[in-house]
Amino acid sequence: MKLGELVKNPKGARLAGIYRISRFEVKTAKNGKTYGDCFISDHSLDVPAKYWDISNESVITLQENFVLRIEATLDHFKEAPQLIIDNVSIPSRQEIDEALKQLGMMASQDIEQLYEALTAMIAGVECKSLKQILDYIFVGDKLFVEKFKRHPGAVKNHHACIGGLLQHTLEVAASAQDYCARYARVNKDILLAVALVHDIGKVREIEVDAFGMPVGFTKEGKLLRHIYLGMEMVEQACRQVGVEEELRLILKHCIYSHHGQAEWGSPVEPMILEAEILHYLDNLSAKTEQFIREEDKALPGGFNRSYTLRRDIYRPSEEWT
Amino acid sequence: MKLGELVKNPKGARLAGIYRISRFEVKTAKNGKTYGDCFISDHSLDVPAKYWDISNESVITLQENFVLRIEATLDHFKEAPQLIIDNVSIPSRQEIDEALKQLGMMASQDIEQLYEALTAMIAGVECKSLKQILDYIFVGDKLFVEKFKRHPGAVKNHHACIGGLLQHTLEVAASAQDYCARYARVNKDILLAVALVHDIGKVREIEVDAFGMPVGFTKEGKLLRHIYLGMEMVEQACRQVGVEEELRLILKHCIYSHHGQAEWGSPVEPMILEAEILHYLDNLSAKTEQFIREEDKALPGGFNRSYTLRRDIYRPSEEWT
Amino acid sequence: MKLGELVKNPKGARLAGIYRISRFEVKTAKNGKTYGDCFISDHSLDVPAKYWDISNESVITLQENFVLRIEATLDHFKEAPQLIIDNVSIPSRQEIDEALKQLGMMASQDIEQLYEALTAMIAGVECKSLKQILDYIFVGDKLFVEKFKRHPGAVKNHHACIGGLLQHTLEVAASAQDYCARYARVNKDILLAVALVHDIGKVREIEVDAFGMPVGFTKEGKLLRHIYLGMEMVEQACRQVGVEEELRLILKHCIYSHHGQAEWGSPVEPMILEAEILHYLDNLSAKTEQFIREEDKALPGGFNRSYTLRRDIYRPSEEWT
Amino acid sequence: MKLGELVKNPKGARLAGIYRISRFEVKTAKNGKTYGDCFISDHSLDVPAKYWDISNESVITLQENFVLRIEATLDHFKEAPQLIIDNVSIPSRQEIDEALKQLGMMASQDIEQLYEALTAMIAGVECKSLKQILDYIFVGDKLFVEKFKRHPGAVKNHHACIGGLLQHTLEVAASAQDYCARYARVNKDILLAVALVHDIGKVREIEVDAFGMPVGFTKEGKLLRHIYLGMEMVEQACRQVGVEEELRLILKHCIYSHHGQAEWGSPVEPMILEAEILHYLDNLSAKTEQFIREEDKALPGGFNRSYTLRRDIYRPSEEWT
Amino acid sequence: MKLGELVKNPKGARLAGIYRISRFEVKTAKNGKTYGDCFISDHSLDVPAKYWDISNESVITLQENFVLRIEATLDHFKEAPQLIIDNVSIPSRQEIDEALKQLGMMASQDIEQLYEALTAMIAGVECKSLKQILDYIFVGDKLFVEKFKRHPGAVKNHHACIGGLLQHTLEVAASAQDYCARYARVNKDILLAVALVHDIGKVREIEVDAFGMPVGFTKEGKLLRHIYLGMEMVEQACRQVGVEEELRLILKHCIYSHHGQAEWGSPVEPMILEAEILHYLDNLSAKTEQFIREEDKALPGGFNRSYTLRRDIYRPSEEWT
Amino acid sequence: MKLGELVKNPKGARLAGIYRISRFEVKTAKNGKTYGDCFISDHSLDVPAKYWDISNESVITLQENFVLRIEATLDHFKEAPQLIIDNVSIPSRQEIDEALKQLGMMASQDIEQLYEALTAMIAGVECKSLKQILDYIFVGDKLFVEKFKRHPGAVKNHHACIGGLLQHTLEVAASAQDYCARYARVNKDILLAVALVHDIGKVREIEVDAFGMPVGFTKEGKLLRHIYLGMEMVEQACRQVGVEEELRLILKHCIYSHHGQAEWGSPVEPMILEAEILHYLDNLSAKTEQFIREEDKALPGGFNRSYTLRRDIYRPSEEWT
Repeated sequence: MKLGELVKNPKGARLAGIYRISRFEVKTAKNGKTYGDCFISDHSLDVPAKYWDISNESVITLQENFVLRIEATLDHFKEAPQLIIDNVSIPSRQEIDEALKQLGMMASQDIEQLYEALTAMIAGVECKSLKQILDYIFVGDKLFVEKFKRHPGAVKNHHACIGGLLQHTLEVAASAQDYCARYARVNKDILLAVALVHDIGKVREIEVDAFGMPVGFTKEGKLLRHIYLGMEMVEQACRQVGVEEELRLILKHCIYSHHGQAEWGSPVEPMILEAEILHYLDNLSAKTEQFIREEDKALPGGFNRSYTLRRDIYRPSEEWT
Repeated sequence: MKLGELVKNPKGARLAGIYRISRFEVKTAKNGKTYGDCFISDHSLDVPAKYWDISNESVITLQENFVLRIEATLDHFKEAPQLIIDNVSIPSRQEIDEALKQLGMMASQDIEQLYEALTAMIAGVECKSLKQILDYIFVGDKLFVEKFKRHPGAVKNHHACIGGLLQHTLEVAASAQDYCARYARVNKDILLAVALVHDIGKVREIEVDAFGMPVGFTKEGKLLRHIYLGMEMVEQACRQVGVEEELRLILKHCIYSHHGQAEWGSPVEPMILEAEILHYLDNLSAKTEQFIREEDKALPGGFNRSYTLRRDIYRPSEEWT
Repeated sequence: MKLGELVKNPKGARLAGIYRISRFEVKTAKNGKTYGDCFISDHSLDVPAKYWDISNESVITLQENFVLRIEATLDHFKEAPQLIIDNVSIPSRQEIDEALKQLGMMASQDIEQLYEALTAMIAGVECKSLKQILDYIFVGDKLFVEKFKRHPGAVKNHHACIGGLLQHTLEVAASAQDYCARYARVNKDILLAVALVHDIGKVREIEVDAFGMPVGFTKEGKLLRHIYLGMEMVEQACRQVGVEEELRLILKHCIYSHHGQAEWGSPVEPMILEAEILHYLDNLSAKTEQFIREEDKALPGGFNRSYTLRRDIYRPSEEWT
Repeated sequence: MKLGELVKNPKGARLAGIYRISRFEVKTAKNGKTYGDCFISDHSLDVPAKYWDISNESVITLQENFVLRIEATLDHFKEAPQLIIDNVSIPSRQEIDEALKQLGMMASQDIEQLYEALTAMIAGVECKSLKQILDYIFVGDKLFVEKFKRHPGAVKNHHACIGGLLQHTLEVAASAQDYCARYARVNKDILLAVALVHDIGKVREIEVDAFGMPVGFTKEGKLLRHIYLGMEMVEQACRQVGVEEELRLILKHCIYSHHGQAEWGSPVEPMILEAEILHYLDNLSAKTEQFIREEDKALPGGFNRSYTLRRDIYRPSEEWT
Repeated sequence: MKLGELVKNPKGARLAGIYRISRFEVKTAKNGKTYGDCFISDHSLDVPAKYWDISNESVITLQENFVLRIEATLDHFKEAPQLIIDNVSIPSRQEIDEALKQLGMMASQDIEQLYEALTAMIAGVECKSLKQILDYIFVGDKLFVEKFKRHPGAVKNHHACIGGLLQHTLEVAASAQDYCARYARVNKDILLAVALVHDIGKVREIEVDAFGMPVGFTKEGKLLRHIYLGMEMVEQACRQVGVEEELRLILKHCIYSHHGQAEWGSPVEPMILEAEILHYLDNLSAKTEQFIREEDKALPGGFNRSYTLRRDIYRPSEEWT
Repeated sequence: MKLGELVKNPKGARLAGIYRISRFEVKTAKNGKTYGDCFISDHSLDVPAKYWDISNESVITLQENFVLRIEATLDHFKEAPQLIIDNVSIPSRQEIDEALKQLGMMASQDIEQLYEALTAMIAGVECKSLKQILDYIFVGDKLFVEKFKRHPGAVKNHHACIGGLLQHTLEVAASAQDYCARYARVNKDILLAVALVHDIGKVREIEVDAFGMPVGFTKEGKLLRHIYLGMEMVEQACRQVGVEEELRLILKHCIYSHHGQAEWGSPVEPMILEAEILHYLDNLSAKTEQFIREEDKALPGGFNRSYTLRRDIYRPSEEWT
């Protein structure tokens, strides 16, 4: 249950689920007893909580920023909701993911299946150099892969959930494969490669919390942005692998230009066919997700004002959907 | 042979092929004999020609703006090339098309096959109303169909050849079908319908010559542009067929907004998901064709300045193509 | 009296005037008696009201959204103002209009006189075709005329009152007649005709309530805007009347271009002299009304910040006004 | 006759008319005789001329930049046209004006009549201070009046002829009088005053030749532009006359803001009602003249590309004009 | 002590310092005694105060808008803080300045020293005419000098304190002297002169309160802005002194163009080398001060959102500062 | 002597100086003798030349793109100038430089002195890490240093000569040192460091000919531009030297943002004080050089149209220079 919904319940309501400990301190009550004073969070709300009968063991378990299974009872303190913790335990990775899904904080598709689809795409690459560089980044660099698989695709708006970056990357890559099937002139390996790497800099640009949810930008994210960071990552990978000079240039140019024009963050406009196509398909994936999110807020046959898209969005009547 | 190439040949060279009579007048020579004074054109060049031994029959055949099979010999008059016509005859439609293809003035794909693909798409539409309206426009309105099949997609730049409008329309429609296959939320019938009708106003906007090549804009094309003209055509068709009010609104809105923003000619931005997708896919089809045309002018590993795209286009080295 | 002022009075204050029933329901009280539970509105405020001694006749009279004469006494219920209805009756059209004028919700000039001025202008048109088309729209189409005469000219800012559209239309038309008197080159019939039809699409674009006051945009208003809707209306009228092709084109172009440039909603800039003049005179009428409204809010010799005009407005000292 | 036409005539053609001496030098021929070597100009062309039998008196008459009556015969020298002067004489002011009119270099309306209309307008001003200041500038300052009456309104495009500034000023002032007749709120004296002074800075901004035709900008015209120069002139006049502080502010603000927004040269947008109206009426006068000039270049029912207005201009068919 | 801090103290806290009397009225209490009812202000807060035992002498001292030394005791009236005045006296200019410095309302450098530096710069000018004009403005015009020395440089953001205009002027002038030392081509006297006069119009543009702090714009400040006002002041000074025409033009052009481009308020872009340099150095001084103010609000190693600069500002870690 | 001047001389004129061999081929004449057929260039002109009596040794000396001392006689062949080579020899580096200076192709200051000034600046850096990184780039990387010292600062407009990059870099660095002397808050080491490295990417961006003159952009220059290339170079240097993470970030951010805003090529605006100052000082150095070059083309007291700066440039009369 979302904390935002829980607190609407009457006193005495029971809570059992997986949440983040957003603050934690061991305090001593007036009666001399030790208790835990903490905040419990699920990214939509922070609720204060007391753990009166805290055991020594629990003191170790309950660390700030940990994600734990919590059982508690709803109480009120000075007219504000407060939880009385009955029990805490450490959940498995799988249990955490299920909880995140229920809280609407994960990509709609399964992360492992998405990642398998990505490696399958790489396996189909014919150009040796490109395959090597993609393998190096998306398979060999274990540290990066762990982050990339669960990273959000944005701080807000579209793909701003766990696994959002992977899902967006695959949407662009899949559209790219469809599209180049109909144009003999497009180099399908290059287009696929740049579709896969175009946003990898976001792993260094977006700051995440213990759940993996976006909370803002990192210092280098603000000062250098994901486009430059992604180019630096590709440049380093290329140096390790030893890719031909021209391919390096093509990969870096496609990342540099994928926002399409200077005002949107790309100092060079696409000068290579695959860069141009990438720009449109990237935009299309982002805008489709945003549109669907905004349409959801409108009633059939009605409008919803989207402040992100800066216009009203119309949702057709049910007979057309 | 292109006339531009012919005139580089020495005097006496022979010409036999299909060309347009761009001017024609019957004159009387100083010796009292009647002869034909005309200009022969293939959209790249106009060459003056004399038909000394013109028969009465030929006078009837040789009308201004007709497209005819011409046999002639290259001569020079006051240091400029001039043709002496030996014979003229009326070619078949098929012969004309073959000639146009050789002169690089037709879409790269076969027009009839493209049109069959279009009608097959319409056949697959499930929504009755949309199917009816598409049938009315693309099958029932014979006059429109004849024009639409051979109309250019633009006055210059991309798809500016005979059949270019049909080819561009099908590119957008095919991409649309690919794309919506991966998004359950997209209404595939609406997206297909608006992909097919989005540019039909060009039939009234672009002026063509006897070959069917674009020569500029019509009066209503300049004063009202293809977006409005297309909406008017859809509105009229809807009134004939009796389509639901909301569908009419959706179709017209998607056409009105498909250039994406006011500065690019759309007074309303896309407010419907399918309108947004159409905007990007339309752009993608146009830009891909333009890019390929510009890339062709560069050497592998070199740049070509594109004045249409306002940037340099890079053509990767041969090993990557 | 405006409801906004009424509620500042002490309990027991009497109300008698013409208002809208914004909600109405027949309920049964704890004592078994039937009463009317409603809301009374004058576009500035909605006040809850009870009609305890409701007669059967009154139940028929009191329909949601009706505009009625109401006599009531101010009461308070749970610290909020509430009206106790004493009597309701059906007012005449004339009585309603007087009430609207007092509430500041109507054009400053008399609607019927304005409409007479408009028909007199049409009577003076020399070009037969233009006269026919103007007669068809502004005289023959009774349904349209009824709406047009009382429609607001905008949702907010300038001319956003009952009859505002008619008043703005006549301001533009009168300026147009003055202006062309001094330029022999201007076609006075065309300029007058486009001045009269330029905003007729607003009848379909702006949603009004039972009083006729603007409450937002209609569905087609948002998706297609008044410029396109007006063109469609003119096109349909032209088809009925059978106007020359070029005049149709001129009329539609002048409407299409009257916002002057793409960013302001006109995909084509004015290409005809009369279209250019219309653009400036339309702007001038709108800006003059807005300026006067903003100036009213400033003290003589002082400034008022206008958020609509995005600047400070200065009102000269009294000696200059 | 325009010199541009004269030179198309065969050798021996006779010229008699009023022209400018654009260069003049007394030289000595090989045979020891003195002759005049000069250039004759009518703003469209400069033609070299020789005055073989020059008298001492003529040497005095023939000064560079003088406008004179010239009789001459067309000759050729090294395949270029050359005039042989037969006689020169000093024309009256009236003769000069008639010549200028025939050469299409003067305002279409009579300058003295225009000026009388202007002084009549000033005579009708009720506000004493404004009347005083207008009298000071447009009647009292003889030096200014002489220049102002014949000054061009622009270097090119609209009103770029002798008297063009006066004509444009009166067009704006007359529209202003029409317009404020229908708005009680507009201060008619202020609006008239600012209509009359808005462009007086052009007298110092635009450089003219001996004919009075514009040849470019003066040094201060380039560095300070007419808006600032006009404000300086009004400020100086106000100081002389002793006008109230607020009126001075209003006059200067209306001049400063009359281009409407920063990008068009007005650092402040209109903040006073009369300033806003002036901005639109000034624009309207300029655009109407430009439109008519561009329309003249199109055939009825055809388009003309206007590089000044950056669009195609359509001239309706003759039946509508 | 700032009033904003004082009111956080418990009842009975003592206040002694220099403040402004923002409102003052002599009233009669119910017991017939006369007392002073006033507000005390320090630009951050207005606090109501009572002066029960007011002497006749004090009634004369306590004028609205005066800046006085006040001793008082903190009280509360209806839960809001109120001061009970014990004593008032007239402070010296020096005492006032010290108080302003402590309240953070004065330029960081000493005003008299800054002014001496300015006159020293003028003394070093070699061009007689420029020296004369600078002397006239910055030394001779005592009234102006008194205002200029203490005037704020802006209403908010950078240099918005007493003496801010003088400080900014000297920063630009000092940078100008440094800069031209390395470019022989720059005329050092002209550059210095325009650096000194570029913002003098702010003395008439910005409204100040009794402390000399900016409270908004004057009427002429809003309608004409400081650029025009400064030009008018220079023009008047030049007329008095009798400076060469070209120098007048240069000085006025440099002021007119110093915002660099039309959108930023300069209708002419810099056309003279010294004008171009002035534009950049002016900008640099303003931006450096703003940046430092914004940086102060960030923690070392952290960001601060600047709404003035429309970006996040990063403050490097302490080891780099 | 510039070749452009030489060819105006009569046949037989003698040429002796240092030029580039822009094309060279050994051919055999009809009489069986071997001769050299070449083009001689000085960046302003290419002149064909024949070396009839070519020795074997000379064949080795005369390589395409070599810069050599050439003695020749002016001849004409088919009415076009042609040189007959008498002798060629290999000049010293110093001789080449002197020649370049005379041809106006070198920085006005001595390159070695400029470089010494640069190393002296580095020697004064107090921050160890910054000193290390500057030493690594500007002293340790011999290959880079050789290029950097003679590289042009731009392809055209300002600093587009040999040594122009070094000269511009020092101008910015010197201004930076002056400027920060007056602001305690500016970190002088960081500001100096970023002033020195801000344009180093130009070494990889601009293509030079054998003289070292700019001839266009390199492939990576077009696809990635100097801003990214410079960041990559700094990143690589930092990795070698082992600089603190935050300093790396600061250096890269200052390079990334130094064009000030997205439309001018910087995807991030300056967020660090030193970045902001760098942006203005860089601009100032570039604009000052451009202004001086454009001013040179105007007469004193006159204007020159600058197409680079998009305005007219005024050159004050001689008395003010």
